[in-house]
Amino acid sequence: MNKKRMRDYGLSVGQLPTGKLNSITDVPGVSVGHVTLHSDSPGTSVRTGVTAILPHQGDWFRRKAVAASYVINGFGKTTGLVQVDELGVLESPVMLTNTFSVPAVTEGTLKYMMSLDNEIGDQAGSLNVVTGECNDRHLNDMRGLHVRPEHAEEAIRLALQAAGMPAAEGAVGAGTGMVCYGWKGGIGTSSRLVYADGNPYHIGVLVLTNFGHSEDLALIGQPVGQQLVHNTKERKKDDGSIIIVIATDLPVDARQLKRIAKRAGMGLSRTGSIAHHGSGDIVIAFSNGNLIPHSPEADFHSMKVIREDGELISQCFRAVTEATEEAIGNSLFMAETTHGQSGRTAQALPVDEVLSFLR
Amino acid sequence: MNKKRMRDYGLSVGQLPTGKLNSITDVPGVSVGHVTLHSDSPGTSVRTGVTAILPHQGDWFRRKAVAASYVINGFGKTTGLVQVDELGVLESPVMLTNTFSVPAVTEGTLKYMMSLDNEIGDQAGSLNVVTGECNDRHLNDMRGLHVRPEHAEEAIRLALQAAGMPAAEGAVGAGTGMVCYGWKGGIGTSSRLVYADGNPYHIGVLVLTNFGHSEDLALIGQPVGQQLVHNTKERKKDDGSIIIVIATDLPVDARQLKRIAKRAGMGLSRTGSIAHHGSGDIVIAFSNGNLIPHSPEADFHSMKVIREDGELISQCFRAVTEATEEAIGNSLFMAETTHGQSGRTAQALPVDEVLSFLR
Amino acid sequence: MNKKRMRDYGLSVGQLPTGKLNSITDVPGVSVGHVTLHSDSPGTSVRTGVTAILPHQGDWFRRKAVAASYVINGFGKTTGLVQVDELGVLESPVMLTNTFSVPAVTEGTLKYMMSLDNEIGDQAGSLNVVTGECNDRHLNDMRGLHVRPEHAEEAIRLALQAAGMPAAEGAVGAGTGMVCYGWKGGIGTSSRLVYADGNPYHIGVLVLTNFGHSEDLALIGQPVGQQLVHNTKERKKDDGSIIIVIATDLPVDARQLKRIAKRAGMGLSRTGSIAHHGSGDIVIAFSNGNLIPHSPEADFHSMKVIREDGELISQCFRAVTEATEEAIGNSLFMAETTHGQSGRTAQALPVDEVLSFLR
Amino acid sequence: MNKKRMRDYGLSVGQLPTGKLNSITDVPGVSVGHVTLHSDSPGTSVRTGVTAILPHQGDWFRRKAVAASYVINGFGKTTGLVQVDELGVLESPVMLTNTFSVPAVTEGTLKYMMSLDNEIGDQAGSLNVVTGECNDRHLNDMRGLHVRPEHAEEAIRLALQAAGMPAAEGAVGAGTGMVCYGWKGGIGTSSRLVYADGNPYHIGVLVLTNFGHSEDLALIGQPVGQQLVHNTKERKKDDGSIIIVIATDLPVDARQLKRIAKRAGMGLSRTGSIAHHGSGDIVIAFSNGNLIPHSPEADFHSMKVIREDGELISQCFRAVTEATEEAIGNSLFMAETTHGQSGRTAQALPVDEVLSFLR
Repeated sequence: MNKKRMRDYGLSVGQLPTGKLNSITDVPGVSVGHVTLHSDSPGTSVRTGVTAILPHQGDWFRRKAVAASYVINGFGKTTGLVQVDELGVLESPVMLTNTFSVPAVTEGTLKYMMSLDNEIGDQAGSLNVVTGECNDRHLNDMRGLHVRPEHAEEAIRLALQAAGMPAAEGAVGAGTGMVCYGWKGGIGTSSRLVYADGNPYHIGVLVLTNFGHSEDLALIGQPVGQQLVHNTKERKKDDGSIIIVIATDLPVDARQLKRIAKRAGMGLSRTGSIAHHGSGDIVIAFSNGNLIPHSPEADFHSMKVIREDGELISQCFRAVTEATEEAIGNSLFMAETTHGQSGRTAQALPVDEVLSFLR
Repeated sequence: MNKKRMRDYGLSVGQLPTGKLNSITDVPGVSVGHVTLHSDSPGTSVRTGVTAILPHQGDWFRRKAVAASYVINGFGKTTGLVQVDELGVLESPVMLTNTFSVPAVTEGTLKYMMSLDNEIGDQAGSLNVVTGECNDRHLNDMRGLHVRPEHAEEAIRLALQAAGMPAAEGAVGAGTGMVCYGWKGGIGTSSRLVYADGNPYHIGVLVLTNFGHSEDLALIGQPVGQQLVHNTKERKKDDGSIIIVIATDLPVDARQLKRIAKRAGMGLSRTGSIAHHGSGDIVIAFSNGNLIPHSPEADFHSMKVIREDGELISQCFRAVTEATEEAIGNSLFMAETTHGQSGRTAQALPVDEVLSFLR
Repeated sequence: MNKKRMRDYGLSVGQLPTGKLNSITDVPGVSVGHVTLHSDSPGTSVRTGVTAILPHQGDWFRRKAVAASYVINGFGKTTGLVQVDELGVLESPVMLTNTFSVPAVTEGTLKYMMSLDNEIGDQAGSLNVVTGECNDRHLNDMRGLHVRPEHAEEAIRLALQAAGMPAAEGAVGAGTGMVCYGWKGGIGTSSRLVYADGNPYHIGVLVLTNFGHSEDLALIGQPVGQQLVHNTKERKKDDGSIIIVIATDLPVDARQLKRIAKRAGMGLSRTGSIAHHGSGDIVIAFSNGNLIPHSPEADFHSMKVIREDGELISQCFRAVTEATEEAIGNSLFMAETTHGQSGRTAQALPVDEVLSFLR
Repeated sequence: MNKKRMRDYGLSVGQLPTGKLNSITDVPGVSVGHVTLHSDSPGTSVRTGVTAILPHQGDWFRRKAVAASYVINGFGKTTGLVQVDELGVLESPVMLTNTFSVPAVTEGTLKYMMSLDNEIGDQAGSLNVVTGECNDRHLNDMRGLHVRPEHAEEAIRLALQAAGMPAAEGAVGAGTGMVCYGWKGGIGTSSRLVYADGNPYHIGVLVLTNFGHSEDLALIGQPVGQQLVHNTKERKKDDGSIIIVIATDLPVDARQLKRIAKRAGMGLSRTGSIAHHGSGDIVIAFSNGNLIPHSPEADFHSMKVIREDGELISQCFRAVTEATEEAIGNSLFMAETTHGQSGRTAQALPVDEVLSFLR
């Protein structure tokens, strides 16, 4: 099947230019790896996986990206946010998986990082792993705990190999078993450019989509969900989740980044979401425009930050709003019909029908 | 001029039914009063005012409404939120005015409340006044501090007289000098019904709109702003604000109400806002479905709260999202062209043009 | 060795009466289980464990305790707080372990809960596990990941068997390898009674102590740390942590409980802590005085809450302040000298010397 | 009467060295002005005032100090924190007064700033004033609203004249009518030095004290309150408040400063407070080590910040803890017996009795 992204059909969101790949990997240094688990045995469908997003291509622990998080709706089990909020840095890849595999993925990431650095867990103290999740129990045997620590390690290795490449979308990695607005969801990404002092900087968004009532879906402002004939009776309406990962090379501090992260909710809303009760809607943002050493050499260091009196930061808000909306769209356009646990199916978004409605 | 609301033109937002008046005053006990200051002298245009929203028709201090706030973007000077967040109650009317008149309005409200109750500021301790604001310097001589404490007292008296009546919209009260998406904004309101145990409850929203870039305006999902020929050159782009007041008679606790309040940002986003940097976007929510006595008689009391495992609270989220979007629209449809300070003008939204685009 | 608690030496903290056991297990329904891992092989000392605190003796998932958290200093990896903060409930035991064993303990708890309830992870949605941690790398081979999921399951089973019994203190369970103010720390507990409408209610605190500079230690207000001859040269000064678990049978809501939880920092301060940078100082509080059904039968339910206009809630603040201070003291008095990883040792607090200084 | 400070009696708090004056005014550029209102007419005792703390001696609006706030207990009416939290800057003096005079003081500060800068409230947008308060109704006719805007303007002028001078303490300015631990409180201050890259930096604290139960007072760890014979029957026990203002010349960002500000609660606790329910315990912190231009010239600027991997920031935590404890002590030692409203009296702390107990 030859899936295409929204823009391939001429559907573009917003005003700002995209990066070259229209992907979170437009942000220099950011790369993405997916481990997809898709297998069947009697009574058990495994439809799940792990996605690793690398904040840069160096030593994540020794050179920490500036980071912030924002909880749109906190019905979720994402780990690592307490320390991100306190210290404003990210010292591991951002990992995504299903809800019950957060421990396995966190442990695997820990093992990977320990294997690189003998001092982690010893002289250098601790390590904070950020792992986001959505609940894929509709298609996946989530109770089976099929993701193991080594899958996380593998996802990181694949991400390292994928440097400079676009991120795969749809039913891959952590997105393998996810359902969004009643259709097959999963991974989607998009990016925008903002200009500062005349130079372009990138703001990329990657989403793991598993939320939404089917009748609520909106695409480029149009109430697509209400027009589609769909089969979503099986799906319990009020759970799901979305994890929104924001990456940028714009040098900002953690407070500025938190303001930027918050706008992901604006983009989410425009696809029709009300951030319903059972949805864990979590934003994790990082900037590799400032890397903070684990052990600085002097008591002071300089941080480059952006002016905050006008348009520049608002352009960042706009970039996140637009890229989040488009990334969600891409997760739907790129995901293939998936059959899973207990004979349940999530159909791919019927793109032809959508396009005929939109035109 | 005979201004009409969005629904009068067949433009409706969302799926839920409105209350009888489609107004925050559909919530039993809630009423609204406006004092409008509109006068001219050489070099000075006064285009401002005060709006009072009463949480119920009893003693606001002795019987406190449950309350919560949520800061979408904190570039604003709203008072009283520290205590609302700590204690989860509202003990005064919610007052709205221009940025520099927050002190006068707060003092006037304090005086009004002291005149009712000899113990306030004495035996009964203190009083927390909640006053929200937007910056109307585009049309109003804001530096002139034309709002005085007695205007706040008058707004409260007018609100008491207005019990059971719809709230006036457009360029009235605190909305007199406000500008929204480059057009004349001000006060707007809308409401929704949600059903619990078979009975209807009301969720009403009143907005004070003074935000947004003209090209961003969206109405019922359509990019109206980009279609309109407009004259907004005079307006500095990146400031403004919106205050969103949410009222309900649904019995909830402060934590539940904060969750509900947060969804106002979802509605705001759908009108095209990215909560730009210079905008103080603040939500203040109260429920008169639970009134907490100032001095309870026993150590325990019972609070009625809603179940939180499924659709009911999501319906509240939907109600706030929809009513906020529609209230913003109403603030634009109902506001008349206003000339003001330094010869500046804010044109009324060209409704005919909007309608022809939307149809 | 016959260790005694602070009060056994006549050292009491504060004004309020303690519960019968002066333990978190004074709170009816609360029980504690410890799995202690203490073993050696060449080059490897295992000094760690798991502690489980049960919020009540029923079905934790189907009958959720009211809960709140408070982050004093967020340099920590505690999981589950995002959902606790959003929903105000606890649906699992509170688990404690070392930093790198949070994944194993979370997975073990998940498995235990799944084994009880076929719908968790399937029809009933997800499960939020709260696991707190401190870094025991000084004495324990933390990189070895010696705690496995089954240790968490065992700790829960032991806690069920321990219903009605005091909680063991000192170098047990998660406290096996912890160091506090340069001395051997670990688990400590204390409780207080508060009266509401004439009846006693319990506020219990259990701490996992692994923080503090040796010269800072204060006991009942006295600068004990500065008086002691001690050997703490090996210990890196600026890390550690404390997890403070608060339990009560007083019916409160999550907002009230968060206010109460915040006062744990007041008690912590009185032992000499400044909540130093590298310390993850986290408070987790729950009340089994209100149990919230997973699937309520009606749209409304009643919550019993406390009046909030005066002394009662301040007594709760006092209770937490006092019990936290005393629980920290007990963790030091009850812990035995422990030799561990790389030949390092944490000496037991020299009680005789302390007593002679205090008298 | 010749009042002396704690250190004049040999009572010192903590380990760190103080600044030259042991005052918030040790921080270069910080100065303090007090307007004291003390007058009587039949039935009315005016015992109140205004205190202004200048963040530096330049243009506060055009060169903004980095700022943060922290709410220990939010039963209070401090204004301006919403914007401080969002933008991390302070653009006015920090003003202190009684609860009901917050509007007058805010308006007076606004007027003062407008008189300096024609663009405030016009081309330059808005202005955020930070005004803290405590409730002085015990001694002052607070309902009389005796503080007027011009008193705030005068306090700022006096602060400008006081550059380089120590801050007056005790029953002056906003502290005129305050009561602390049952004794006359008011203004107190203290400072500490921390060293970074070999150079000294200052952390100063100024408190407005109006909180606490008399039996709870602790000085240098000793339970002084329980030893004193006192007459505090008239005082309602459970209200009050403390405002804690922290100033530093150490260059930090707003996130770092918020972490530092939070430790004021540790110092507060050590004087015996449990942050009781009715107390609005609020921390406002600023650094003039980084001044942010209102309109930067380029899209990026550099911020000097401190390393955050070890002792330096912990020393800042220690400095705030110690200086807060000592500033509270100074507010008690320096305040004179004050007779006020309705024949009520707050006695000065009986220093001789205190000293004989402590020795």
